[in-house]
Amino acid sequence: MTAGSHDLVIRGATLVTCDPEGTVLADAAVAIRGEKIDWIGPTALAPASARRVIEARDRILMPGLVNLHCHAADSLFRGLVEDLPLEPWLQTVWKAERAILTEETCELGARLGFAELLLSGVTTVMDMFWHPEATVRAAKALGIRVATGGIFFDFPGMDGHGAERRRADAEAFAAAHAGDPTVFVGTLPHGTYTVGPAGLADAFAVAEAAGGFFSTHAAETRAEQDTVTGRYGRSVIRHLGALGLLSPRTVLAHCVHVDAEEIAAMAASGTTVAHNPLSNLKLASGFAPVPAMLEAGVNVALGTDGAISGNDIDLWLAMRLAATLHKAVTGDATAVSPRQALAMATTAGARALGASDRIGSIEVGKQADLVLVATDRVHAAPLFDPVAHLVFAAGRADVTDVLVAGRPVVEAGRLLTADVPALLADVHALKARTLASIGRT
Amino acid sequence: MTAGSHDLVIRGATLVTCDPEGTVLADAAVAIRGEKIDWIGPTALAPASARRVIEARDRILMPGLVNLHCHAADSLFRGLVEDLPLEPWLQTVWKAERAILTEETCELGARLGFAELLLSGVTTVMDMFWHPEATVRAAKALGIRVATGGIFFDFPGMDGHGAERRRADAEAFAAAHAGDPTVFVGTLPHGTYTVGPAGLADAFAVAEAAGGFFSTHAAETRAEQDTVTGRYGRSVIRHLGALGLLSPRTVLAHCVHVDAEEIAAMAASGTTVAHNPLSNLKLASGFAPVPAMLEAGVNVALGTDGAISGNDIDLWLAMRLAATLHKAVTGDATAVSPRQALAMATTAGARALGASDRIGSIEVGKQADLVLVATDRVHAAPLFDPVAHLVFAAGRADVTDVLVAGRPVVEAGRLLTADVPALLADVHALKARTLASIGRT
Repeated sequence: MTAGSHDLVIRGATLVTCDPEGTVLADAAVAIRGEKIDWIGPTALAPASARRVIEARDRILMPGLVNLHCHAADSLFRGLVEDLPLEPWLQTVWKAERAILTEETCELGARLGFAELLLSGVTTVMDMFWHPEATVRAAKALGIRVATGGIFFDFPGMDGHGAERRRADAEAFAAAHAGDPTVFVGTLPHGTYTVGPAGLADAFAVAEAAGGFFSTHAAETRAEQDTVTGRYGRSVIRHLGALGLLSPRTVLAHCVHVDAEEIAAMAASGTTVAHNPLSNLKLASGFAPVPAMLEAGVNVALGTDGAISGNDIDLWLAMRLAATLHKAVTGDATAVSPRQALAMATTAGARALGASDRIGSIEVGKQADLVLVATDRVHAAPLFDPVAHLVFAAGRADVTDVLVAGRPVVEAGRLLTADVPALLADVHALKARTLASIGRT
Repeated sequence: MTAGSHDLVIRGATLVTCDPEGTVLADAAVAIRGEKIDWIGPTALAPASARRVIEARDRILMPGLVNLHCHAADSLFRGLVEDLPLEPWLQTVWKAERAILTEETCELGARLGFAELLLSGVTTVMDMFWHPEATVRAAKALGIRVATGGIFFDFPGMDGHGAERRRADAEAFAAAHAGDPTVFVGTLPHGTYTVGPAGLADAFAVAEAAGGFFSTHAAETRAEQDTVTGRYGRSVIRHLGALGLLSPRTVLAHCVHVDAEEIAAMAASGTTVAHNPLSNLKLASGFAPVPAMLEAGVNVALGTDGAISGNDIDLWLAMRLAATLHKAVTGDATAVSPRQALAMATTAGARALGASDRIGSIEVGKQADLVLVATDRVHAAPLFDPVAHLVFAAGRADVTDVLVAGRPVVEAGRLLTADVPALLADVHALKARTLASIGRT
């Protein structure tokens, strides 16, 4: 075969584009040149030659998933503490984190988490953790796009820095990664109960100056609502609104405890909600009113949260839960359609990052962030509706191939960008010390 | 290697026994002779030779899962009808079922469903469907234990039989399979709103005579409660109780809408509840009060329901949901522990079938129904707690090997007992006709 003008042609796939019309094409092909999608159409009309061809019969080709709330390095503590109420659980987890987390272990944990995400077809992740430079190093090593930045926290952090350094740290991070196409820069104040108005304003100012996102935990638990209401005389979302922090660059993780007026304020301001259904279940936080948010026009995206409230970071499960949980909560079997759930896992995340022109869907001119999903499996047959299949029956283990910016990072279910056995050995080497940190063996 | 006295030794595994003490052993071995578990202990002391040895380092060895509520053949209609309220949804599904279901397609659908179950480590399934002889043929072909029997339904069924034939059909089925170690015989009246007191009494009498189970849908939806209350002046569970149908042989699927008095009656009578969390979410049925049932001492087992309310039949997801959903519903992060969820998927199902002496746990003298779960994967590291891992992070795709009565049915993730591509081709061949049956192409 002679070298063609395209770098890659994927042929014969069922194409779920997630474009604005929700186009789904049978026996379709996509041609890629460099980082970008150059051509989309029927396989019969596809470019005849390319440097590489993937025959994707019996597979769905879909855009890379966007996980809009994660703490990847918390994967180091997966399953460490179980069967405790929230408060003693959190105290124990924090004890272990304080003992174990260094810039080096944060990077190791991020590599572990990002490996899991890429293998499941997540190509962009918003990650909130200490040592964001370590997070970026891990993301670049593994080949995942990452949205991260300076943490804000009014108390001394696990990185040893105090509140007075947060703004400078965040500015330095933003300056270091300005213009990097694989890093979405922003700021990540922890929450309204742990960061006062001054810190929140600083964080928003840095995000604005960088043209980046501003993301915080919001209205996750009743205890948090009580604390914030007691301190400021207004609920979490009203507090953020009064401070001028609801905006199209704002990403609020959780929003379990919000009322109609708060939902309207989030919709009017263009604020994004990162819905983390599994975390909200496991930590007994409750049920975010997602159907009401969608109805009001809020941009609702999906997140996994960290593996200490999971215990995995599986955006497929988040999608399945987003499309099923709210049916039971509302008693309406049509609440949150499969198409809406898929959009939450793709285009809504892209929009939150101001990147709708680059990622989130398969369209000519966009980045080739692509996922192939096997359908020659018993749980996929018969395949009447590819979108319903992706949301209601497919799972992480059906992902065979993943490309980010046209670059293969997963092939035939194997991660190309990390030595997984070596990574696992490094993670296991920390186990004894982690257990010891909370007095166990 | 010379032939040893054992047929198989599995060595080096992390053993999660599900025995009454909840024993978990590191670096353990299990030796099998014929159909049975003959020896359990440390790998270092394991029988030195056997006809076959499986090195199971980096794997968890656990008992085969028991799925206590399924309609495997409904897999033929997976994803056919979505985004409709319950009533029009059901009418459309029934239209397709009436057009497609024959004894032959019921067998095909059962093969498809059982293939999915075995690949995910389910070794015993209670299946309710038309043509139970076809169900048994499919189960025997694939090598899964099946609990099934005569359907009772007061209207003409999809099998063309009327209510007057149900008792004779059920008796014939029970007689044909008496004493078969791979078939648990019982009766399956559809529900209290579709089967009157006479049919229910017949079904119970047949089950009792056969020493088998009696299983019906119960208290799944509010509409069903309203119908039954309107007709009999008492709720579904009270109606069953008044008819004398709560008993240790009784398995009630769903029980979403039950109160404390009904829960107490189920506990006192030894009735089993088959909890189907995903189906209850997707069909907007609600949340079964599982923590209250467990607290009262009800035997709560797990089911997947059929793939039309799923859209897969994944008992791992049922387990994960059982251990997380009820935390959010009750606001108690300790509701339904991982250990309880695992018991629901194993020992509780065995107890419901009166088979606690044979299946549900790994103990010497029991049947070798065994599952190996890979843990050398990124979402499994670090592995602090094998039971929490199985419930909160593992999934169907982690199952590598499955044995039923000592016989390998899945090896290295491949089903040994069916030609999967041929099976899928047969299923796909029905697609056009299925779509046409509801006026689609």
